[in-house]
Amino acid sequence: MSHKVLMLPGDHVGPEIVAEADKLLRCLASEFGLAVELEYANLGGCGVDAEGAPLPDSTLALARDSDAALLGAVGGPEWDYIERDKRPERGLLAIRAALGLFANLRPALLDPELVNASSLRPEVVSGLDILIVRELTGGIYFGQPRGIRTRADGVREGFNTLVYGVDEIERIGRAGFEAARRRDGRLCSVDKANVLESSELWREVMEGLAGEYPDVSLSHMYVDNAAMQLVRDPRQFDVMVTGNLFGDVLSDCAAMLTGSIGMLPSASLDETGRGLYEPVHGSAPDISGQGIANPLATLLSVAMLLRFSLDEGELAQRVERAVARVLADGLRTADLGGGQGQSVGTAAMGDAVVAAL
Amino acid sequence: MSHKVLMLPGDHVGPEIVAEADKLLRCLASEFGLAVELEYANLGGCGVDAEGAPLPDSTLALARDSDAALLGAVGGPEWDYIERDKRPERGLLAIRAALGLFANLRPALLDPELVNASSLRPEVVSGLDILIVRELTGGIYFGQPRGIRTRADGVREGFNTLVYGVDEIERIGRAGFEAARRRDGRLCSVDKANVLESSELWREVMEGLAGEYPDVSLSHMYVDNAAMQLVRDPRQFDVMVTGNLFGDVLSDCAAMLTGSIGMLPSASLDETGRGLYEPVHGSAPDISGQGIANPLATLLSVAMLLRFSLDEGELAQRVERAVARVLADGLRTADLGGGQGQSVGTAAMGDAVVAAL
Ligand SMILES: CC(C)[C@H](C(=O)O)[C@@H](O)C(=O)O
Ligand SMILES: CC(C)[C@H](C(=O)O)[C@@H](O)C(=O)O
Repeated sequence: MSHKVLMLPGDHVGPEIVAEADKLLRCLASEFGLAVELEYANLGGCGVDAEGAPLPDSTLALARDSDAALLGAVGGPEWDYIERDKRPERGLLAIRAALGLFANLRPALLDPELVNASSLRPEVVSGLDILIVRELTGGIYFGQPRGIRTRADGVREGFNTLVYGVDEIERIGRAGFEAARRRDGRLCSVDKANVLESSELWREVMEGLAGEYPDVSLSHMYVDNAAMQLVRDPRQFDVMVTGNLFGDVLSDCAAMLTGSIGMLPSASLDETGRGLYEPVHGSAPDISGQGIANPLATLLSVAMLLRFSLDEGELAQRVERAVARVLADGLRTADLGGGQGQSVGTAAMGDAVVAAL
Repeated sequence: MSHKVLMLPGDHVGPEIVAEADKLLRCLASEFGLAVELEYANLGGCGVDAEGAPLPDSTLALARDSDAALLGAVGGPEWDYIERDKRPERGLLAIRAALGLFANLRPALLDPELVNASSLRPEVVSGLDILIVRELTGGIYFGQPRGIRTRADGVREGFNTLVYGVDEIERIGRAGFEAARRRDGRLCSVDKANVLESSELWREVMEGLAGEYPDVSLSHMYVDNAAMQLVRDPRQFDVMVTGNLFGDVLSDCAAMLTGSIGMLPSASLDETGRGLYEPVHGSAPDISGQGIANPLATLLSVAMLLRFSLDEGELAQRVERAVARVLADGLRTADLGGGQGQSVGTAAMGDAVVAAL
């Protein structure tokens, strides 16, 4: 039986990097026996332009019918001033919600070859390997009520609701414990329980789950301290689990510790293992169309897709090793300081990874 | 007319570092003509132990009657398991709210002598000088409704409300613009307007204020990107203005960029210039009672107190120069890598600053 993968190139550099993922998947099919069918659809600004919505119905229908989706990136200045519910990122939020992709896995891994790309001292970051597990379909991103209203005294106010039910916390908590179990067995739950009741419940539920995972050691940290500790000594962490908004901020902070966000993949999973995979970086309008975007984050997202949604762990490892190999061979896209190694563009980097499989 | 300053030593290292501030203020009074009266009161765990509340009524009454208050630090493990509304940090939140201390100013300044304390590369942080202006009495910290309730389906949920009125945003926005005007004229407003309506209004109000400050250039950044940019290239920022929760996280992140949170002061001001001043670091139960805590963040908080609440800018500068001088002379407390310079304890460091006045 063939796996169905939906390709969502998106905007700006999105199509350029997804083209390399297409090459990679087709090579895995022809040379390594991967049974896969690729379909294409619009998400983001291209969806607005072609079909009038950042998440067209046809895209959602195809996504529901697929085992996994691979996204390039969405957004760009041309959609900055359109109505709020047509903005490209609305498509992203909508597909996460519609598919129930509650578990966002964001590894921050520093390839030994790239230790000099980091703004942190080598002795602080070398060997960095953190996994952030971020809740993705709840919290303040989706909480009701929300909006802008006029108070009784005539002053306008904007309001949002941060809400987490025990069921949602347990679900993402288990994703965190499971991930820690597969890694170094250390889970740090991040909250703001000294101020927020929603965090108080979050902490209580995490404590409750701990009994089911005696092989995992659970700790708690306030979000402000977590931001500090990521800068001070990031290697103290193995897996961090947190809510949607805290995860948004901390995962970007952790990603930047590596200095190479062009290298970092992510997975957003539902309860059955279906997922949306995407590089952590954005659509980079400033460099789009030049063929210089780094495709490695997208290729590493393919590796996550193979592992988590297609159950092809061996092929996933093959892809990861191929990426490590081209880096060790000195190939560098511009964002990795192209000049120091052998400077290559998007397609040449993709070809090199395929050749190194 | 003599200024009234309320001293709030607080818990653990709090009394040790506030003792040095006391020395400093008395020296400024006896040698440099500062007209000041010092009173003492309890805040935090000491308030709970002595008077049954983290913010005793007597403390609040004295604070209302003072021009400024200087806080050491609150909290410690001995109060971790008492009821929520008696926790030491509740006293801090309560005094901020009761005195209307809406503007929290947190400078992240790297002394040239301490560039090696940072976990970031020297070429990324040397000369770092950021001011974070954090809203301190609103947002999700104080928003209603909040709590833990049981949903119709029997599942418990925790909820909090993030709410900002135009009046609150304008007030803190002006504090940001005014601060930028006194510095390099660049203000970056941080929000999450692509997801949150409260941030949408925040951004709109900031844009509206910009017309009144033609000498300040205003930019906007999403909070996730701001966390990234602080790590990637922190010197791009001059003043950042943001809400209570985002400010909590970003200011701690920015503080840690310097590598020396034992050095960083803060001010929390009301609309008239009355303020509460405190070091950014906590009560450090692990080192309390040993006489080794770094008093410099507290002494620099005294400098902010002199400048903002007592209108004694010259004395403030005198204190700041004395601190720079003792660092240049090689004096170091343990947290600054005592071994490399001349290793000193809390009292010796305080004495050296007083001597360098
Ligand atoms: C584009 C934006 C809505 C999104 C988010 O905040 O989740 C992005 O920052 C991310 O982290 O994937
Ligand atoms: C102790 C805590 C409630 C407080 C806050 O979150 O405001 C602290 O982190 C701070 O930043 O002063």
